[in-house]
Amino acid sequence: MAPTIGVFDSGFGGLTVLRALVERLPSARFAFLGDTARLPYGSKSRRTIARYAAQSAQFLANEQGAEFLVIACNTASALALDAIQDAVSVPVLGVIEPGAAAARAASGTGDVLVVATEATVHSSAYTAASTAHGLRAIEKACPLLVPLVEEGWTDHPITANVIEIYLGELRAEAAARGMNPDTLVLGCTHYPLLRLLFERAVQPGVKVIDSAESVAQTAAQQLNNGAASVSAGSVSETEIRCFATDSVEKFERLGPRFLGRPVGQVELIDLGG
Amino acid sequence: MAPTIGVFDSGFGGLTVLRALVERLPSARFAFLGDTARLPYGSKSRRTIARYAAQSAQFLANEQGAEFLVIACNTASALALDAIQDAVSVPVLGVIEPGAAAARAASGTGDVLVVATEATVHSSAYTAASTAHGLRAIEKACPLLVPLVEEGWTDHPITANVIEIYLGELRAEAAARGMNPDTLVLGCTHYPLLRLLFERAVQPGVKVIDSAESVAQTAAQQLNNGAASVSAGSVSETEIRCFATDSVEKFERLGPRFLGRPVGQVELIDLGG
Repeated sequence: MAPTIGVFDSGFGGLTVLRALVERLPSARFAFLGDTARLPYGSKSRRTIARYAAQSAQFLANEQGAEFLVIACNTASALALDAIQDAVSVPVLGVIEPGAAAARAASGTGDVLVVATEATVHSSAYTAASTAHGLRAIEKACPLLVPLVEEGWTDHPITANVIEIYLGELRAEAAARGMNPDTLVLGCTHYPLLRLLFERAVQPGVKVIDSAESVAQTAAQQLNNGAASVSAGSVSETEIRCFATDSVEKFERLGPRFLGRPVGQVELIDLGG
Repeated sequence: MAPTIGVFDSGFGGLTVLRALVERLPSARFAFLGDTARLPYGSKSRRTIARYAAQSAQFLANEQGAEFLVIACNTASALALDAIQDAVSVPVLGVIEPGAAAARAASGTGDVLVVATEATVHSSAYTAASTAHGLRAIEKACPLLVPLVEEGWTDHPITANVIEIYLGELRAEAAARGMNPDTLVLGCTHYPLLRLLFERAVQPGVKVIDSAESVAQTAAQQLNNGAASVSAGSVSETEIRCFATDSVEKFERLGPRFLGRPVGQVELIDLGG
């Protein structure tokens, strides 16, 4: 029988991670939870984030029977991975480490650029993970990109222009530190929708790492090597159930752009305050 | 003795309202509360917003001794004004009605455009207030403008371009409805920082109403006519205390742009969950 994989995010951006997982594990069943009532996690304390993320992980593991959890939320991955692992008895994979590992594999110079939200950059999680891989990383917050994606301007000249400005500032800062970056990590679950614009905007030879792809690849490897095998069984229609704690209408409206297919009816759940 | 005026917002955007109040009532004392731990209000239920706003109003009235409250939050003004008035015994003024009244005074054709956040537009509060004044209003959500202001791009060609796109779409919709708008209401506390860009972008003859100015003007009238007079007393240094429930650092960093002067040390308070 196909295992159930739980995917958690504070919002619905993590649907890009679910999309990458579905491509690699089409015979698995998926339960996605967006804790939309309590976003943004980025402005909250570590203790509050740990409590919210643990509750969400327990919902997926205990109530939805997930045998493997993917934390498709950069803030929760950065600040609450330990707390989530303590809260459930199934394997838990965060989104940051696979991105850093992919950057290590891609980079020749060892210098990498990271673009992410303000909260993720503030946590310095990508810098820490990159340093652990022997890389030098420089991070930049790009707060306009999530609203531009949510406005649907994923192929708009204004978005291309904003990306050029952000990358120009990031390159200038890297040059000032004597770095020679050859890899750019997209460290936010909204950014896969801007991947083409980023690939057009980087200098020749700079590789773009999509952390949603990286975490899905790592999850597929762990699942195929581990106890919860998904290689067995015939590929049928992938089963996906989506849950949210609020704003179901926005989830249903914007979700398909992130998932690349209909999200179906999103089920509203209450995890408490 | 100068009265204390309490100003409440879910974030710090309401500092533009405080700025307009200080200009008109320089001898008053002000206590500003940004409920930054629980923003955005826009995605929450009416009941939750009413509870948060009532707690915030009680803090200002009971603990800070405010004798008059200005609700510089469009969402709370739209959904929780009654609940706030029930929660405190001092006069309470919301931000929406004065904006609609100013549009009524400014408009010759009776057709007005309103730009605001998604949550405010979703509430239809400006349309309701405008209709009550005999105006026809058409509202548009401009979700990129708050992030552009917070990025500091208040005089940036990209922001001017985004405003042109939004206004173009709004004018097309008004034309399709056979409307002839001659007034534009800025229905978000962040937008006063974009006033010049809006004034450059509107058609000749269209008047721009800044709802922060409108609410401050109404507050000054009510205070000078009412029990809590501020006309007495000599003008000295205006006393302003700022409180926030979270993200004090961001408040202190961005606040001066909205207030037009230093915000001083922002005091962190806890209103519970």
